[in-house]
Amino acid sequence: MDTDELFAESPISDRPSSLSSSSESLYSSSCSTAVTGLPFTRVHLDSQWFGVDIGGSLVKCVYFECPVANGSSQEESLGIAEMREFLKSNRTYGSSGVRDDHLEMPSQEFGGRKGTLHFIKFATSRMSGFMNMVREYNLNDFSKVVCATGGGAFKFEDDFQERLGIALHKYDEMETLVRGVQYFCRHLPDECYYWENPKKPDLARKKVFKFDPGIYPFIIVNIGSGVSILHVTGPSQFKRIGGTSVGGGTFLGLCSLLTGCDNFQDAITLAEKGDHTKVDKMVRDIYGGDYHKLGLSGNVVASSFGHMMHKDRRDEASPADLARASLVTVTNNIGAIARMCASIVGIERVVFVGNYLCDNVLSTQMLSYAMEYWSQGSIRALFLRHEGYFGALGGMIMKLEEELATESGKEDDYKRSDSE
Amino acid sequence: MDTDELFAESPISDRPSSLSSSSESLYSSSCSTAVTGLPFTRVHLDSQWFGVDIGGSLVKCVYFECPVANGSSQEESLGIAEMREFLKSNRTYGSSGVRDDHLEMPSQEFGGRKGTLHFIKFATSRMSGFMNMVREYNLNDFSKVVCATGGGAFKFEDDFQERLGIALHKYDEMETLVRGVQYFCRHLPDECYYWENPKKPDLARKKVFKFDPGIYPFIIVNIGSGVSILHVTGPSQFKRIGGTSVGGGTFLGLCSLLTGCDNFQDAITLAEKGDHTKVDKMVRDIYGGDYHKLGLSGNVVASSFGHMMHKDRRDEASPADLARASLVTVTNNIGAIARMCASIVGIERVVFVGNYLCDNVLSTQMLSYAMEYWSQGSIRALFLRHEGYFGALGGMIMKLEEELATESGKEDDYKRSDSE
Repeated sequence: MDTDELFAESPISDRPSSLSSSSESLYSSSCSTAVTGLPFTRVHLDSQWFGVDIGGSLVKCVYFECPVANGSSQEESLGIAEMREFLKSNRTYGSSGVRDDHLEMPSQEFGGRKGTLHFIKFATSRMSGFMNMVREYNLNDFSKVVCATGGGAFKFEDDFQERLGIALHKYDEMETLVRGVQYFCRHLPDECYYWENPKKPDLARKKVFKFDPGIYPFIIVNIGSGVSILHVTGPSQFKRIGGTSVGGGTFLGLCSLLTGCDNFQDAITLAEKGDHTKVDKMVRDIYGGDYHKLGLSGNVVASSFGHMMHKDRRDEASPADLARASLVTVTNNIGAIARMCASIVGIERVVFVGNYLCDNVLSTQMLSYAMEYWSQGSIRALFLRHEGYFGALGGMIMKLEEELATESGKEDDYKRSDSE
Repeated sequence: MDTDELFAESPISDRPSSLSSSSESLYSSSCSTAVTGLPFTRVHLDSQWFGVDIGGSLVKCVYFECPVANGSSQEESLGIAEMREFLKSNRTYGSSGVRDDHLEMPSQEFGGRKGTLHFIKFATSRMSGFMNMVREYNLNDFSKVVCATGGGAFKFEDDFQERLGIALHKYDEMETLVRGVQYFCRHLPDECYYWENPKKPDLARKKVFKFDPGIYPFIIVNIGSGVSILHVTGPSQFKRIGGTSVGGGTFLGLCSLLTGCDNFQDAITLAEKGDHTKVDKMVRDIYGGDYHKLGLSGNVVASSFGHMMHKDRRDEASPADLARASLVTVTNNIGAIARMCASIVGIERVVFVGNYLCDNVLSTQMLSYAMEYWSQGSIRALFLRHEGYFGALGGMIMKLEEELATESGKEDDYKRSDSE
């Protein structure tokens, strides 16, 4: 299957006759013969094993791979195996879809079944193409309920229903985010890290931080297209205490306008080569040095893009400088807001998550340094390896818990009726 | 005198033989004959009657015009009168200098002398040209101490000393800001205003607010090139509780890069014609409507410049749309930070000042609406008519108080020695 077609905006007309696999599959020994040549028909998706977080820029999917449920027909089993084979034999799907195989989590247990968690994301702008594919391959034949979170769970609800006959089971994105963070931190000992010597390129090291999300309170700063800041005070107690629309979408939007690059990875790569002090007005540009009274170093940005009001400075700034300034502007502003929230409510543990931090070492180091610098070392910036997948997993867990509660209720009913 | 030359970067070589005056002068009856034809020589500037705030983008000057001190020579008196005539006969000086005659304050009293406060500003980038003019016309002949605040008081200190022989008497910009706000609000009953119906163009009205700056606490949000937020708890008790480098310099810098306009007024005029929703990703673009759970309207910006990551959207956005989005991004972000600070420390009076608000009705209305909307009506955005001159006036007042204290000390000494 040509992966460039996967999320094509127009319906896929040529159905592939076989799946090409370049990587070994868990199912290769038992399924390879059967899989090859089978079309995607009547695939049974157990909805509780998928979590989808449809954000402003990206759709994040979590998929739990486990043995096919008892009672499935051979055709269903083969269909599921074929879909798994397809997902696992690729790392990229179309122009924007990516499977983050480095984040894969084996040996996870949900509802008494053991399996592996997979993580896939693609651009929200390709949602229509994604739906075409689901319809084309009848992936919606058996799964009539899908759990979803993020704004897109609301925006695309009617489309899912009308085009695919699928009802979205919606969860609030803040709730799923908190649940997801708690799950990952509890189940992966190396999920959480911080930067040691974030400002010194030769000495900067990622260090594992033993973050127990059961010890409250803490703050979550979720950096997606925009930014939300949550104050978490209990297992399901949290409040959105701040936010800003200056987020990852702003960085990519500005970079696209100012430098012509139009994808996140190119923008990050460009920013890494730039010098933002050619673009930003620093404290030293205004004060001639440090602002001693406030303890502000001359190397602190005083006015983002402040030099750009002067034509000679604009002529001197390169695309890389502008990309770097966009990154520094967005990141510093988030850091300032996060620090304000943290210091005012007196919290020292601030967890930064969201896909803005994906492959964005610069921003994680800047946030680390900024939080430490501005709080005189009292606030530590923490990061989680599964950057943007917390909402998707949180939604899946919440759905699963509901299903299990229903099952348990049924069992109780059965027991009751049995004993009566 | 050709005002275009006033702040020329190169020394002014042709000294004018006379001043041209197109406006009536308070001194015209007594001084006009004497003034005409006199060169700017040996002008005596009493330093305490000037306050200068040298910021990242603008130099703000407050000048107190009062009768010439007893004991001044005729030549000095005429020189001072000539300079006043020049300042008052123009509203613009060079390409960036402006006298805000609509802000003029007559009948003010300082140190027992009555007079008028004048307000002048010019671009900090013209500072070198300003110094050339001061030297060319020997304005520094008698005034060896000038009180100054803002970062430029530190940055240009050596230049003032070496090029002009003037020692800058420096004051902290936060202290002078608070002092200036307190003075204006106490002495001008209509200094403070708020917007009634800020979101409804036909119904929006400026209403005078009786702001007593002697009732604490309150918050000052100073929007210059960057932004500082002060928590004021007493006459000279305050703390900087937040800030961001995304300020007026960011707005003008981004507009200059994205639209080609390179002065603040043009950028504001352009922004007034634009539609930021062509550039920003709104909550409704992500949610398909409101985000009910958080009470977020679909019309709220979710991701500033978020649409610009898509080429088709970039092609559709006009320069006016981009200018508007720059304005909305900067203003909303400031509003969000200010609101967070205010709500977390439980303060309902938030005073916005700084030259970013000059002729910027859009931003004052946006801040008004945002503060009201996000705080469910509990926080009111207040504005002051003398937008950016508080630091300059505050510095002048602080210097004057020191002088008066010294005078008082001398008198005490005299009385003591007399009685001993």
